[in-house]
Amino acid sequence: MDPFMQAAIDEARQGLEEGGIPIGSVIVHDGKIIGRGHNRRVQEGSAIKHGEMDALENAGRHPASVYREAVLYTTLSPCAMCSGAILLYGIRKVIVGENRSFMGEEALLRSRGVQVDVLDDSTCEHMMQGFIASKPELWNEDIGE
Amino acid sequence: MDPFMQAAIDEARQGLEEGGIPIGSVIVHDGKIIGRGHNRRVQEGSAIKHGEMDALENAGRHPASVYREAVLYTTLSPCAMCSGAILLYGIRKVIVGENRSFMGEEALLRSRGVQVDVLDDSTCEHMMQGFIASKPELWNEDIGE
Repeated sequence: MDPFMQAAIDEARQGLEEGGIPIGSVIVHDGKIIGRGHNRRVQEGSAIKHGEMDALENAGRHPASVYREAVLYTTLSPCAMCSGAILLYGIRKVIVGENRSFMGEEALLRSRGVQVDVLDDSTCEHMMQGFIASKPELWNEDIGE
Repeated sequence: MDPFMQAAIDEARQGLEEGGIPIGSVIVHDGKIIGRGHNRRVQEGSAIKHGEMDALENAGRHPASVYREAVLYTTLSPCAMCSGAILLYGIRKVIVGENRSFMGEEALLRSRGVQVDVLDDSTCEHMMQGFIASKPELWNEDIGE
């Protein structure tokens, strides 16, 4: 397992243990994690802290040059909000754990020149599908459905 | 002046008084403001709290039905991140103060069926252009440039 995807999975698991939605993300620059996070809808009553957004927030403020060399790892295909954040900051490469539980805006990202690699990781998929089956209403709220 | 756009301008002015980037937003549902906010990059060292995101966060958690009937007001054309959040939650109508200082993802929003009305408001424009002229590096950081 890629250690950065493993770190994103660790974040997702931490979210699950907190009673939250198990989606995690890390942002890597120059071979190091500069930001990591997980979905905080339940924990903070947040409508904007998806895993990727939490990782961006925890990374703090950076100049554009850092984002352009960064890679974002996320356990689940990024939704429109998180994809928009990736586009805003010009992150050029995104590694996705899986997209079977939810297909985000991968086509939009690719159409703007972002490299999106999907790992089809079974750990990510089982974690997410178990969560969706157990709390469908919470999941629908998180994706605006 | 539309009272809701005035509220968004008041938020932007508050941000400016705090030493921040003067962009404000309110979210209106059923004729009432359910969330309001302004850019907090400087105030909180935040990479994700643009005005629209701050308003969404302050509105708190809502079911999809609320967002679908909501109108988002923002003093400036929404960037990719904020436009993505609008798409995620299915907000169908966005009122923009001005888009001369910055052209956001209005075309993407319209292509997904969102109504985007641009007011060409001179108060919004002067406030933003004065800020950009005074702190161009901070502004570039906020839009990933």
